[in-house]
Amino acid sequence: QNSLLSATGTTIFTVMSALALEHGAINLGQGFPDYEGPEDVIDAAAAALKDGRNQYPPLTGVPELRQAVAAHNARFYGLEIDPNAEVVVTSGATEAITACLMAVLNPGDECVLIEPLYDTYLPVVKLLGAVPKLVRLSPPKWELPRAELAAAFGPKTKAILFNTPMNPTGKVFTAAELAFIADLIAKHGCYAVCDEVYEHLTFDGWKHIPLMTLPGMRERCMRIGSAGKTFSLTGWKVGYITCDRSLFGNVAKAHQNLTFTTAPNLQRGVAVGLAKPDDYFASLSASLEAKRDRLAKGLAELGFGVLPTQGSYFITTDFRPVVAPWGFNGDDVAFCRTLTEEAKVTAIPVTAFYASEDAPSHYARFAFCKGDAVLDEALARMRRWV
Amino acid sequence: QNSLLSATGTTIFTVMSALALEHGAINLGQGFPDYEGPEDVIDAAAAALKDGRNQYPPLTGVPELRQAVAAHNARFYGLEIDPNAEVVVTSGATEAITACLMAVLNPGDECVLIEPLYDTYLPVVKLLGAVPKLVRLSPPKWELPRAELAAAFGPKTKAILFNTPMNPTGKVFTAAELAFIADLIAKHGCYAVCDEVYEHLTFDGWKHIPLMTLPGMRERCMRIGSAGKTFSLTGWKVGYITCDRSLFGNVAKAHQNLTFTTAPNLQRGVAVGLAKPDDYFASLSASLEAKRDRLAKGLAELGFGVLPTQGSYFITTDFRPVVAPWGFNGDDVAFCRTLTEEAKVTAIPVTAFYASEDAPSHYARFAFCKGDAVLDEALARMRRWV
Ligand SMILES: CSCCC(=O)C(=O)O
Ligand SMILES: CSCCC(=O)C(=O)O
Repeated sequence: QNSLLSATGTTIFTVMSALALEHGAINLGQGFPDYEGPEDVIDAAAAALKDGRNQYPPLTGVPELRQAVAAHNARFYGLEIDPNAEVVVTSGATEAITACLMAVLNPGDECVLIEPLYDTYLPVVKLLGAVPKLVRLSPPKWELPRAELAAAFGPKTKAILFNTPMNPTGKVFTAAELAFIADLIAKHGCYAVCDEVYEHLTFDGWKHIPLMTLPGMRERCMRIGSAGKTFSLTGWKVGYITCDRSLFGNVAKAHQNLTFTTAPNLQRGVAVGLAKPDDYFASLSASLEAKRDRLAKGLAELGFGVLPTQGSYFITTDFRPVVAPWGFNGDDVAFCRTLTEEAKVTAIPVTAFYASEDAPSHYARFAFCKGDAVLDEALARMRRWV
Repeated sequence: QNSLLSATGTTIFTVMSALALEHGAINLGQGFPDYEGPEDVIDAAAAALKDGRNQYPPLTGVPELRQAVAAHNARFYGLEIDPNAEVVVTSGATEAITACLMAVLNPGDECVLIEPLYDTYLPVVKLLGAVPKLVRLSPPKWELPRAELAAAFGPKTKAILFNTPMNPTGKVFTAAELAFIADLIAKHGCYAVCDEVYEHLTFDGWKHIPLMTLPGMRERCMRIGSAGKTFSLTGWKVGYITCDRSLFGNVAKAHQNLTFTTAPNLQRGVAVGLAKPDDYFASLSASLEAKRDRLAKGLAELGFGVLPTQGSYFITTDFRPVVAPWGFNGDDVAFCRTLTEEAKVTAIPVTAFYASEDAPSHYARFAFCKGDAVLDEALARMRRWV
């Protein structure tokens, strides 16, 4: 069997969700809303099952959704995108990331990754025979270590894969940081796989900036969006890649080998979603900002060191102040297990987002994409426990 | 960019479907029905969008569908399958094939493939760094060349990937052929990826036999089924892998890196489908058998050499008798183009299912999974043209 997969554990999200279920814990681990997405989007997907379009859609997506993706890029970012030659719809952002990496990486190529990182990045880079070059952001500020990043690029660099707004840190990359990354990409003539699934989940006036909008980056970026995150429908697994036509061919061919196409009725529902007025997107981020505030305030009151969250579904916390009084000296995995078993609240250990053992091990990630009553109950449980 | 993908053309199915559209041709190319699947399955999927289960389902599939897959294996093949540790639901059979290959192949491993083959098999094996070993079936009888197959297996063989009922040949592997393959697998201690998407589309009393049911094969096979083909809903992209628990871990982890999960409402619809009475499956194959007969008879009357079809959506034809009278001396690609442009009927050139240039080039594949009126009109158009 494949030795790389054999050596990998079950994903932390499945492990912790199962543990939550077993202990009747409130699951603030895996990042999914406990509320449903917009009714009109769901209704559109249901109606689309009934009008005779249940066979293979075009490989790159139904025309309605490709057009909606192009229009969305124009509306929010001023990007002019050809819906017929620069958009590929995928079966979720996970597939999109794998397809983009597959499109550009050859065995032996180097790919720059930024830690902490999402748990499919590293295995996929390795399964493609490419060589990961890891650069680490340091908590609690998660600033980009510019010298180290520059040093990670070299003659063999084919791509950088990064995520903004970022999971699990809640970091939104700044214009200056993106400009620095863009310079490195231009200098080394490589590509960027831009995991931007949380593009509409930014707070406190932070705005998401696609790397693709920076000078010289239009031809070098594969930008990934997610209907799951933008419409609170994580189970639908509809993602979309926007890329220059020079990359489109290989991205489409990678997609062909991974899933070939994506269910047309869900695609048509998502097209309705992307056409929603600006209001929708503004109230989505406002609603999540309020949830972030609610959970952050409660966690701080409990004694957690709460790191700032500028975007995404997640708050990272330093749990040492909470557990120090009772002499707890375990790591984040032990903490998250104990929290699940005793407090009946589940969080994700942040070491799961690192490749090696020397990761900081005193952080736990909490998801706040939950109903207010659920967040309150989770806080109440932890209060009783603490 | 990835050189293997750069060197690959756009898939023949997309190319020919686009050409059909351009010329207003009846599309007997890409294998998808022009009718819809069962209403209760579609209704179930639509209803499932509305009861609050639109977030990530479990990585390996919703319990309802995993149980239905296990029950389906028991009902049709007498296989006892654990729905919790031996079933992985995927976003279509294409993903399932890629996930199974990824689960077992290491770079440098050899993988036996049988030509003619489906067009994602070879690139995926190569992208994983494995070495394909091709064995060719010879038309018109498509018999398994036993000595050559045995010679293709060696100390580096990790897997064989094969397809029964088989696209494009319409061949159903016999019990004797499967026993021969099973012996080789047992002897070399390797695995089988069994693409059995056409399992319920067999004719003339031919019955599909999963390799997994043969002695010693329970632990060595990854068996792939497809809701698209079994319920005439090719766009849904719901597939399922049945495999021993010893393979389950790596298959699930590969799936995690490819798509992570599959839309829960479609999964729940498919669960309703798999629970349908035996009647449904019998009338599905009866209906397709009648379509095969209709098209085969018409093509024979036009002068095509019609090869027998025991299963699948497809008839392979030798077009030389038709074109010989007018001195046509092109290959199958030229024939299929001409047929599309002039007769306004689209077929697939069979050389698209071969890795090298020395393939037989006088065969065209016609799909018969179409309404009777459409099949009749296609035949009428070709009659006028001939
Ligand atoms: C695809 S399951 C994980 C969901 C997620 O993005 C997260 O919790 O980090
Ligand atoms: C996934 S598109 C091709 C459909 C098919 O199986 C075929 O036409 O051979």
